Formats: sequence, structure tokens, C-alpha cells
Amino acid sequence: MAINDQPVTFAVLGCGRIGRMHAGVLARDPRSKLVSVFDVNDAAATETAALLGVAKAANVDAVLSDPTISAVLIASPTDTHVDLIIAAARAGKAILCEKPIDLDMARVLACQEAIKPYDVTVMIGFNRRFDPSFRALRERVVKGEIGTLEQVIITSRDPAPPAPHFVKASGGMFRDMTIHDFDMARYLVGDIAEVHAFGGVLFDRMLGEMGDIDSAVISLRAKSGTLVQINNTRRCVYGYDQRLEVFGSGGMLIAGNQRETTVQSSTAGQTGASDPLLYSFIQRYTDAYAAEVGHFVDCLKNGATPLTNFADGVEALRVAEAAIESMKTGQTVRL
Amino acid sequence: MAINDQPVTFAVLGCGRIGRMHAGVLARDPRSKLVSVFDVNDAAATETAALLGVAKAANVDAVLSDPTISAVLIASPTDTHVDLIIAAARAGKAILCEKPIDLDMARVLACQEAIKPYDVTVMIGFNRRFDPSFRALRERVVKGEIGTLEQVIITSRDPAPPAPHFVKASGGMFRDMTIHDFDMARYLVGDIAEVHAFGGVLFDRMLGEMGDIDSAVISLRAKSGTLVQINNTRRCVYGYDQRLEVFGSGGMLIAGNQRETTVQSSTAGQTGASDPLLYSFIQRYTDAYAAEVGHFVDCLKNGATPLTNFADGVEALRVAEAAIESMKTGQTVRL
Amino acid sequence: MAINDQPVTFAVLGCGRIGRMHAGVLARDPRSKLVSVFDVNDAAATETAALLGVAKAANVDAVLSDPTISAVLIASPTDTHVDLIIAAARAGKAILCEKPIDLDMARVLACQEAIKPYDVTVMIGFNRRFDPSFRALRERVVKGEIGTLEQVIITSRDPAPPAPHFVKASGGMFRDMTIHDFDMARYLVGDIAEVHAFGGVLFDRMLGEMGDIDSAVISLRAKSGTLVQINNTRRCVYGYDQRLEVFGSGGMLIAGNQRETTVQSSTAGQTGASDPLLYSFIQRYTDAYAAEVGHFVDCLKNGATPLTNFADGVEALRVAEAAIESMKTGQTVRL
Amino acid sequence: MAINDQPVTFAVLGCGRIGRMHAGVLARDPRSKLVSVFDVNDAAATETAALLGVAKAANVDAVLSDPTISAVLIASPTDTHVDLIIAAARAGKAILCEKPIDLDMARVLACQEAIKPYDVTVMIGFNRRFDPSFRALRERVVKGEIGTLEQVIITSRDPAPPAPHFVKASGGMFRDMTIHDFDMARYLVGDIAEVHAFGGVLFDRMLGEMGDIDSAVISLRAKSGTLVQINNTRRCVYGYDQRLEVFGSGGMLIAGNQRETTVQSSTAGQTGASDPLLYSFIQRYTDAYAAEVGHFVDCLKNGATPLTNFADGVEALRVAEAAIESMKTGQTVRL
Repeated sequence: MAINDQPVTFAVLGCGRIGRMHAGVLARDPRSKLVSVFDVNDAAATETAALLGVAKAANVDAVLSDPTISAVLIASPTDTHVDLIIAAARAGKAILCEKPIDLDMARVLACQEAIKPYDVTVMIGFNRRFDPSFRALRERVVKGEIGTLEQVIITSRDPAPPAPHFVKASGGMFRDMTIHDFDMARYLVGDIAEVHAFGGVLFDRMLGEMGDIDSAVISLRAKSGTLVQINNTRRCVYGYDQRLEVFGSGGMLIAGNQRETTVQSSTAGQTGASDPLLYSFIQRYTDAYAAEVGHFVDCLKNGATPLTNFADGVEALRVAEAAIESMKTGQTVRL
Repeated sequence: MAINDQPVTFAVLGCGRIGRMHAGVLARDPRSKLVSVFDVNDAAATETAALLGVAKAANVDAVLSDPTISAVLIASPTDTHVDLIIAAARAGKAILCEKPIDLDMARVLACQEAIKPYDVTVMIGFNRRFDPSFRALRERVVKGEIGTLEQVIITSRDPAPPAPHFVKASGGMFRDMTIHDFDMARYLVGDIAEVHAFGGVLFDRMLGEMGDIDSAVISLRAKSGTLVQINNTRRCVYGYDQRLEVFGSGGMLIAGNQRETTVQSSTAGQTGASDPLLYSFIQRYTDAYAAEVGHFVDCLKNGATPLTNFADGVEALRVAEAAIESMKTGQTVRL
Repeated sequence: MAINDQPVTFAVLGCGRIGRMHAGVLARDPRSKLVSVFDVNDAAATETAALLGVAKAANVDAVLSDPTISAVLIASPTDTHVDLIIAAARAGKAILCEKPIDLDMARVLACQEAIKPYDVTVMIGFNRRFDPSFRALRERVVKGEIGTLEQVIITSRDPAPPAPHFVKASGGMFRDMTIHDFDMARYLVGDIAEVHAFGGVLFDRMLGEMGDIDSAVISLRAKSGTLVQINNTRRCVYGYDQRLEVFGSGGMLIAGNQRETTVQSSTAGQTGASDPLLYSFIQRYTDAYAAEVGHFVDCLKNGATPLTNFADGVEALRVAEAAIESMKTGQTVRL
Repeated sequence: MAINDQPVTFAVLGCGRIGRMHAGVLARDPRSKLVSVFDVNDAAATETAALLGVAKAANVDAVLSDPTISAVLIASPTDTHVDLIIAAARAGKAILCEKPIDLDMARVLACQEAIKPYDVTVMIGFNRRFDPSFRALRERVVKGEIGTLEQVIITSRDPAPPAPHFVKASGGMFRDMTIHDFDMARYLVGDIAEVHAFGGVLFDRMLGEMGDIDSAVISLRAKSGTLVQINNTRRCVYGYDQRLEVFGSGGMLIAGNQRETTVQSSTAGQTGASDPLLYSFIQRYTDAYAAEVGHFVDCLKNGATPLTNFADGVEALRVAEAAIESMKTGQTVRL
């Protein structure tokens, strides 16, 4: 049932910031064709449809019953993901869904069960696996360039805290933000055996009042024995700091940050100062988002296996929940 | 006569490597519309037209008499530029022409004279002025971040020598390759007063046998007094090395090179090793080529003044000819 | 009782690798005078004395009863430290003792009690506090350059595992090696409230058979709330990797590694490769060891307060013991 | 006539800034013994002698007739070098003389002739050849790491212009400052065949009024064909900028600058800013000055051949004079 030479036809569900970004990627991708977009916020859908010259769907059913649409990209609020995944699977649509699948593990597992009967491709949007630098780093690890992998250090710092209404629906920093780092850890070291987390409210009282944290340091031990450290913060004045360091018997690889330009300045007080880091995740991961869609299209056209499947979404959430428990109990949590 | 909301309609003349690249840029640019392409090599034109889904023009006249085409992008062999510029100007088309305008100064000046009566926008493709890093560097110089500009060091190393047939038609390294650096010097320091050049055949006998050189070091003195050094080579094993260093009373700015990824490796023998530099100018200047077209479209739609006009093409060639003379005579040449 | 213009007179107890290094520092320091050295291994003492042109003491008593000696530098095996500190304090000598004070907390506290009556200067050799880069980093933190300190990342990787006989007497990696990082953490963030550690035997079976580990990741929470991560390994093929990263509300400071030269190489496969890191701690911390002695001399001559006093030795050991307990129990240990 | 186990005995002639620095190096060097110092400025000599605890010689004759002195280090004003070299050679003393030998080529050649009969070791103080990074770079070039050497780029920027009285006696920037770069060029590429120089007064009117320049760009062609670029300035606000770049068929090596610490700062406006460069040549070349004396002592004790002999002093001056001529005539000068 390969779609072959024809572009893969898409609808985007959800026209918030990330939905619009994805819709733009699809509109520019020569192997994809964006047919329609939908959002319960009609203004958002109208604007996105107009901007990209595609149809605005009347509702989700109109999308799912449209035989010209092969695939849906789900970028709606997290609490709608499960229902949309199940409905789309029933409708025979291929699914690329933003992370996290849901904030509640029971619902996630029920969803996994519910879609089992339907032979559709499902991919979860862990975009960082598709970043060219992180991907190259992993390939070099797999090729053995640094021997046995012993330690991984993940630095992941958001430029600024989310808005209050977002925090409420986010499930907390570990489920919302660190889940990317948990997935990156799994991408590099495989299944996780033990989790420990310290979290704190160091600067953002609002986050604290809502029961969330703004800073964390996390230790993981993989089943393989490899040790992982993650450090997180919700506010980083010099930009969106995203680094990976892997250390092994044969050496170390580090993937660093991007900047707008390569210009470095030396003046009376200092030397070699570079631009701030890129600020927004959309700018930082431009190439990754395009490659993610490209990979999904490969899965549909050429039968490739999704690099980030439903089970990956489950497992990253499992690590996040273990981290939450560890933070509360002060104990190492075994998975 | 603004073209306003409609995309600017283009034909590309010349479907060699750089013509195809430009055609691709135009095809992806939402503010441009590529109507047709032409090449005397019919196979090249056919392939490019098919790839991009545009018309293949029967000949140049068909392009120039097509009222739906507003602008031509000239990427044909250098010795055809002058005739095409004149014909396009007569036909009232806006012109974006690859560098150099021609290898012969007399012909270039005659062309300048010939197109004077026609009120068309003419821009010369000195793509490097549009590189985000070089552009940011210049803007910071202009803003006074490093005070009075005193010295400029331009490193410009091609990854590999051109093919023999290309060398024959190239007019020599200074007119073909260094002309970019002469333009960059003018972009940064304004008009050039004095030129000295050492050239040599250090590794490529073929280039020597064809009367060309493979390596050069060049000194310029601007009318402002600013001193400039350019170093060139036709072969650089670690990639396409393109750097700018500007030094002034208040400090220094350096614009460095791009690499495929940010990964750095530390192993038993060494630390912090990065990827090779990007190899091809098309990859290295991807953003610059897109910005160049974008600027040209701005000129047509919004009446912006071309950053690289015909006179810039004349002056860069003038410096190149002075460098050739200096190399031959061993004297500083005054402009 | 200032010693003023006269150099401070020293004996060095212990002529192993680190004792010889210290003796050399004292011999070159214009404000110190090395009088004699002692080691139970007579050959080591003889060689060191001859090399530096100083006396070889017959025994410890001969040193402690020598009225021309003002200060002792204790670099003997760890299990001799407590007795030597007490004896030296009784003899009225100033004391600069290598870390750790002892492997047993009860003995350390008893020692602290025992020397209370004697008004002698006691300093513990946490050399890293005297490293120019780490020191400058801390001063900039204290001055508020990065606002409120929120996170500290300490990378500390030994080039190669210790010899078996050394491991036996070392008290394990946390007491022997990580104790430097615990002290550095305390230097930057003050007292530690909570400790969690994962340790593992990832590559050195010998270490595992002796009940020790070769790799660890450790999380600390300071009383101030600041979060700290330490990563350790006993083998690092590219050299002795010692880095500090501090992150706060106003930005980040990183102190990196030293290399033998500044030379960077770009060849066909890669660009910007630097030398391996310095391999030995003696070479890496040359300046720090000299500054440490310099500070101790300042304490004696000018009444400065030791930057690393006995209590610092106690507290670093306390964190090490908590890390050991956490590693065993899987629980966060509260101090 | 090896001096073997005994330290080489020295007198230092000239107790200005650089003489005092050399005297300090000799006083700390275990293989050298500084016996006495002399300066026509008695206060300078008195102070230096007192500081280092050595004798103040009554006059030059007293030094040269002192049989306990084996070697003289000449750091007096340039116009006294020739006479002192000849007198010291006659007295059978080994000679380490600061650059330049003299400002007048005829006097230099006459000196060379005059000392021929005396079998004494003569070395000229081109300290940069002894810098660990520059030396390592050259060794890697010689070993063939970058294949055939094709281009050399020397960046050499003084932090601040010399004082007026110094300028008067300096012989101009090329003889005083660039002579180091000419020697470095010769160290890397061998004999020079052609020279071109642009010089200018871009910021320091005083230098211009005294007939000197403050900025220059220079091109050299070696007899081997290798091309060299040197850029110079007398004022650099971010420190003493000293870089070497060598480019060849197999790649590139760059030797960069030193800073006080490795700390890098990332704040709201920028990332990765390092310390300013070391400001003074004495601090920047500390290791080089010590290695220079070490090499001279090797020559005396072990019969090593001086790396920077009298002829090197002659040849560097010859290039400087060619550069001056080129600057005046606008012509390439052939040697």
C-alpha cells in the first residue's frame, strides 16, 4: 500500500504555536501535501489555513472521514491526544503525535491497547532524536568511536518559564519538559533501570504555587549500567541551552549549541564572545522538525520503522513518573 | 510600478550547477515564481525544468518577449553575460547576474553604457554580502562596535581546483575567485586605492600550464587608509575555508566557518576535534543565496536599492585587474 | 608572633609522589625555606633530600623537636595523618596536611578535639580551591556576575585508575577522589543538605573486586537550595578532565581544561583538534599547588585565615560518607 | 670545554624592563648562576642587584675581566649591542644578545666580521622561536603533518605603542617589532626571496610625526615559494595578540593566544566570552624566555647549536630593510 510517488497527504489537528510550525514544515516539504488544518479555536485555524493556502476543516470528523487525507499530525492540547489517536487509528490514518501522549499512564496504556487492532503507523514527536548533531553523535557512539558508553550528561535549559495556563495543563516539568531528556537518554543508553531526582523552586514562585518546580538535577542508571545525568531549568538568560555529552572507554563526544551567526567579538574587556544561543525551540530545532516529518514520510512511503514509536512515548513517561516519585520520597526508584 | 502582493516572476538563463541552484531557490521562495528556464545545453534545461515543474523556454528571445516574466537570473557562462544583460535591459526585465560581469573591462564598461537608457534594476551576484555572519559582522562595524576600522583579514580557500575547461574560460583566479574577496573588501572598507599581489603555482601544475595560479596573498590599501590582506588557495583539504577578521581601534570581530554538526570529539590523542568545514560553496552559502534573491525581490517589490549594483561589479573587476598587473610587474598598482 | 621577613621554615613528612612535589614547590618558593624531609622509606627520603639539597631527618621526633622548623607539610599515607597532626600541634608547628584527614570520621573528630588546645595554624590540602581558573570563577560568582547561583556541574575524571595497593588504603573513590569535588561543591555553594549517589564498576574489575567503584554520578542539594551534579570516572583516555560549570539567574561561567600548547589542527577529516588534556594532577595543578603553599605562608606571616581549615576536611568527609551510604541504600541521605 | 655539572655563570648588561626580566629568569634557573648585573643607570642596576641578591658590577670592563663569569646577556639599548658583542667576544664570553643586533646593516656586518676570530657562542634573542606552542607547531610542520607548507599567516599586535623616547631609538616598527615576525617567518619557511609592505599611520599621530608607522601589512615570498602574510599594529585593546597559522597540502595548524584563566562567561547578551589576552610580552612569553635561556645553557654545557645565531639576526634585519624600502617605493623588493 505504498504511496510512492505521490506526496503524503496531511491534516494538522491543533493550530497553536507548535501546530502552526508543523503545518509550515508540511507546506514546504516537497514529499508532503498539507490538505487541511483544524483547531477548536476557529480563529487560529482560519489564520493558519489562510497563511498556508489550505482548507480549514469544519471539525475532526471531517478530517478523519476525508479519503484524500492519509495522515494526521496531532498538535492539540495534551489531554486531547489519546482520543484523537484512537479516532485517527480507527479511521486508518497514519499518526504523528506531539509528546507527551498523555499525562496519565493508565490512559496511555489504554490507548496503546485500543489502537492495537489497527495497522496504522504511529510516531511520537520526540523531535530531538532528529537533530542533525544529536543524531550524528549517536551514530558515532553506535559505531564505537568512543568504545563502551559509560556516562551521558544532558544539559537542557529552557529560556523562560511557561505561562501559568500552560503550567496547569502540563503535568509538571518532568512530564512536559524533561520527558525530552528522558527520551534522549533512552535513545542513547536504552532502557532505564533506576531513577533519582532532586527538584526545586529556585526562582519562580508562581511555578511553586502551582505545585511545579523550576530546576532539577536527575540521575539515571541504565539497565546496561551506563550512568546518566540531566540538569534542567526553566529560565536561562543566554538562550535555549541544549547540550549532550557522552563519555566512554575510548573518549568523549559533545554536541553543543547553535547561534545565529559565527561572529566572535574581542574588545577591551574580553575576547571571543559569541552570539547568545538561539532562544526558541522552534528556531533551535528547525532542522530536527523537518527531519522528523521527513522520517515519518519515509515510514509511510518506504516502509521505514518509526524511530520514536508509541512504546517510546510510554517509556519516557514511565521515567518521568519515577522521577516525580523519587523527588517526593527521596528514594531511588527502580523500574 | 511596484509588483506588490504578486510574486516576482522569473526566468533563469543557464542551467549549470549554479543556475540549477538559483532555480531551486526561486522555486522555494514564496515571494518569487519561477516561470521558465533556458540553457543552450538542451538536456540541462530539460532536466531542470522537469525537476522544478516549470517551462523550458525555446530560446532567449522567448524568455525576453514573455510579458509574464519580470526578471531574469543570468547564470550562463561569463562570456555571455554582457549580451544577455543588454538584451534583457532592452526588454525591460530586471536583472540578477552572476559575477563576474565579464572578463574584459572594456566590454564591461560598454555594457554599463549600453544599459544606461533602460530603467531596469540590475544586481550582481556577490552572494557573500548576504551571508548572515558576514552581514552581521559588517553591521557591527558600521555601528562602531570596534571603533575605527584599521585592518581586514580575508581568508578564502576553495576546497579543490576547478576543472580544466572551466579554468580556460575563468579569466584566472583573481577574476574568477578572488573577485568575491575584492568585493567583500569593498563592502567593508569602501574604495580601494592600492593593490599588491603575490601569486604562485604551488601544487597544481595544470593550472600553471594554463597560465593561471593556485595560491595568492594580496594586500590592499583602501582610500580610507584601512589595510586589507587576502589569502587564497585553490585546494583546502579540510573544506571550504571562508573567514573574515576585522580589527579596529575598539577591538576585533571574526566570522568563522560552518560545519555540518556541532559535535566535537576527544579521544586518546587529541581533544575538541570538530567536523570538516562544509565543502561546497552551494552548501556553505545556502542562506546567502536565498537572502540574495530575497534582497533582489525587495528591490523589485519595495523599491530597495540593490546592495551589489553594476558599479560594484565594475570595481571588483578593476581591483582584480590591478592585482594581475601587480603580480606581473612586482609593483604596487594605484587605482 | 609574625615571622615577617624571614622565610617560613618547613619540613616535609612523606616523600612519595605528592610529598616530593610539595618539597619541590617549597624549595623554589622565595618565602619558604625547606629545612628537612622525612619518610619511613629511607631511600625515598634520601633521594628527595639529595635532589633538593636539604637535610634528611632521622625520624619524626627529630623534625618536631627541631626549633628551626616552623611548619610541617604532611604528605604521608592517610592513616598516619591524625597522629602526625596531633604530634605536630603539640610541638607547636603549623600544619599543612594533605587530604583526606583520615578515612574514619570518629578518628577525624577525635583529632579535631585533640588539637583544640594548641594554637597552631592547620590547613588541609584541597589544592583545587587555589587553581587560578576555579578561583577566578568563584570570585565572579561571589561578585554576583551570574546572579543567584542555582546549579553547579562538576566534571572530574582521573586519567587512569590507581594501583591496587593504593586502592586498598584509599577508603574508596568517594573518600579519596570525589572528596576534592565535595570540597569544591562546598567552596561554591556552602553547606550540603542532601546527597544521592549512583556508583558503578563499568570497566575496572580489579576495583570492583576490592569493593570499590570506577564511575559515579552524584547529586547534592545545598542548604541554600543550590543543586549540584558531580560526575566521576577513574579512567579518561584524553587526559585529566577537570571542569566547573556554574549556572545562575544571570548566566553561566565555565572553567575548562588546560593543554600543553594552543596548537589546533585541521586536516582532511576534521578541524580544530587540540592537544590532549594534561595527564597528571601534578602538571594540571602546578599553579594551584604553588598558590596553596603561598596562601599557607600568608597565614603564617600575615595572619590570613586558612581557606581550607580542619572543619572543611571534616565536612568534605561527611559528604563522602553520605554518598557511600546513599550508594548502598538507594536513598537520599540528609546531613 | 664543557662546563658540565656546574651552573653557567652569567652577568646581565642592561637593567631596563627586559634586562630585569632576563636577570630574574637566570636567578631562578637551577642550571644558571647570575653573578652580577650592570647598567649605566646606576639606580636601575642597584635595584636589580638588590632584588636578586647579586653583585652590581662597577662597569662593563669589570664584568668582562671577571674570570668567574662565562656568559653575558646583553639587554642594553640597541645602539650599544655591537660594541658590547665585540668586547665580550674578545673577552671570551658566550653571548646572548637581545634583538635587533643593530639598526644599521653595515655595522651589523662589521660586527659579524669582527667577532669571527673568537670562538664564542653567540645567540640572538628571538624569544618567540622558544614559545612552546610556536615550537610545537613548527615541529609538526617539519614532521610533515600538513604536507608541503604553502602559506603562513602571522598576526602580531602590540597592546600599546611605545613611549616617544623609545620610538626615537627603535629604528622604526619594522626593525623593532616586525623583526620578530620576520624571524618567525624565516624559522618556518627558510630564506626570503621577495618582500612587499604597506605601512600606515592610522591612529597614532606621534608615531607619524617621528617618521614611524603604527600599522602594516606585509607579504613575503620565500625562496621555497611559500607565501607569508604578516599583519601588525601598535595598539590592540584586547591584549597582546600573537597568532600563527600555517597552511599546507595536508591541512592547517593554528597556534592561538593565552589568557589568564580558562573561565568563559555566558550572560544575557552573549556567550562564551573569555578573558582578555595577556597584555605584556613578558607575561605572554614567560615560558619562551625561560626556554631561550635553557637552550643557551644547553649550547654552552652540551655543545648544542644555537637556534638563533648571529646570521639569523642579520637576515631578519635584511628583511626589515627590504620592507622599509618596499613601503617607500611601492615595489616588491627582491633579496
